[in-house]
Amino acid sequence: MDFDLPSYLRERAALVDAALDCWLPGENLLPAALHRAMRYSVFAGGKRLRPILTVAACEAVGGTPERVLHAACAMEMIHTYSLIHDDLPAMDDDDLRRGRPTNHKVFGEANAILAGDALLTEAFRLLADPEANRGCDPAAVLRVIETVARCAGSQGMVGGQVVDMEAEGKSIDFATLQYIHTRKTGALFLAAIQSGAWLGGGDDVQLAALTRYGETAGLAFQIADDILDIVGDQAALGKDVGSDQARGKATYPALLGLSEAWRHAEELSELALAAIEPLGASAEPLRAIARYIVDRTS
Amino acid sequence: MDFDLPSYLRERAALVDAALDCWLPGENLLPAALHRAMRYSVFAGGKRLRPILTVAACEAVGGTPERVLHAACAMEMIHTYSLIHDDLPAMDDDDLRRGRPTNHKVFGEANAILAGDALLTEAFRLLADPEANRGCDPAAVLRVIETVARCAGSQGMVGGQVVDMEAEGKSIDFATLQYIHTRKTGALFLAAIQSGAWLGGGDDVQLAALTRYGETAGLAFQIADDILDIVGDQAALGKDVGSDQARGKATYPALLGLSEAWRHAEELSELALAAIEPLGASAEPLRAIARYIVDRTS
Repeated sequence: MDFDLPSYLRERAALVDAALDCWLPGENLLPAALHRAMRYSVFAGGKRLRPILTVAACEAVGGTPERVLHAACAMEMIHTYSLIHDDLPAMDDDDLRRGRPTNHKVFGEANAILAGDALLTEAFRLLADPEANRGCDPAAVLRVIETVARCAGSQGMVGGQVVDMEAEGKSIDFATLQYIHTRKTGALFLAAIQSGAWLGGGDDVQLAALTRYGETAGLAFQIADDILDIVGDQAALGKDVGSDQARGKATYPALLGLSEAWRHAEELSELALAAIEPLGASAEPLRAIARYIVDRTS
Repeated sequence: MDFDLPSYLRERAALVDAALDCWLPGENLLPAALHRAMRYSVFAGGKRLRPILTVAACEAVGGTPERVLHAACAMEMIHTYSLIHDDLPAMDDDDLRRGRPTNHKVFGEANAILAGDALLTEAFRLLADPEANRGCDPAAVLRVIETVARCAGSQGMVGGQVVDMEAEGKSIDFATLQYIHTRKTGALFLAAIQSGAWLGGGDDVQLAALTRYGETAGLAFQIADDILDIVGDQAALGKDVGSDQARGKATYPALLGLSEAWRHAEELSELALAAIEPLGASAEPLRAIARYIVDRTS
């Protein structure tokens, strides 16, 4: 219980930020406008939770952060691309993200679409980068790429977004809500954790434990997100509160009520902790993150 | 000179079509609307030139078509995603593509953006697919993924599209035009050819020859495209002619004049032929394609 999570998150986020700055094409490279747009959203003050999960999963199986920093950056690029596209006028039509104007508000719609496309593409380039993967088993690297693509694609994150949009303003059942959340947020969470474990050299038993952790913690995170959209502090969140409700979005609190949704998130967090109990001290950061996910205020 | 290109193109396109149907998620899988949108544009009657180049490059180094069909499909998915996004209202705002309503006209803007995202993601999943790559050297597979991503990303295809949009209605120099065309079309051409050569087991000398072929044939193809936009037959092309000019697009004929542009395309086609001269009989399909690229009417 003595684990200092704030310091851990700050230090790992700093590693991720430095790596992102190193791997993302510079604004001096052509086309400068595109690279500016990509960097604008990547460096817009995200919590870096997904890349930190990649690092923490690698550490949990005995690897070093440096081993997986490129994969961690790829997760953040994919997350950022999905936010840029979700914010577009044709989708959620959001003007603010993390307290700043959204990408298309600053760079225009066409550049925002292309900046998202380029971030997604660059993520896969980085996952396959020979320099970054030096010393990794090529078969493990391929497994990571296949998993990340599956989790981010039409039956993962993108699929979740489609069903989420279809559900807007409609009354949906619990199974559909579960479908949306396990894909829209959960899938990339899981990919981030599995990538860290594979590249860190984890064995099958560790992989199974971390997979269970990823599934439960990812869903807990999304439920907490839904709750914060209702009870959260606008300044801390950097976005409008109550926006889900205004849009008739499918959420856990809308379907279960606030207290029941909260209870469900806590329960999932406990399941995540139980899943990685056998991993010992090296999984302490993941344990603290599972608690933080449901206790955070932003 | 006896090589029967129409039969070759028809047979290889049939292989690619069957593989695409096999690899693309079915319309019975959730979310059905997304998979319908993805399949709508993939099966909208394209020539399959990029995937056929992957197959032909593999055959040129002694491999079989089956060895690279998944990579060939990935090229067509990336090409299709780029067309769907290029056609969006925020970009070229096209209503017709290959004689049919564009993706966003049928499925709406949000679904078109997400269908493009999902096709790009699925392409990388397929390139890393363990089943499809059975028997391939994992290091070669990683090299293919890195190359495809580099050619499709911010300093490749997406970068070319950004600079092309920036140049609309402006007078640009030859170097900028070259920048746009080598990236917007040429980069994916090159990736298609190099992927086929690597997965087919080509050696460094063969790779260098095919790279030179890809660079020159890709540019020749784009110049011929520009020319067809002026002198082509609307019915054969399946799109409006004169659209580049109406938009003030940067093209070779606009900068060099029609006859000089044509001469340049012919010259590039000759360079492509010279590059693969040492490859012998197995490169006959690629030779016929280099001639066809500048002689086609659609």
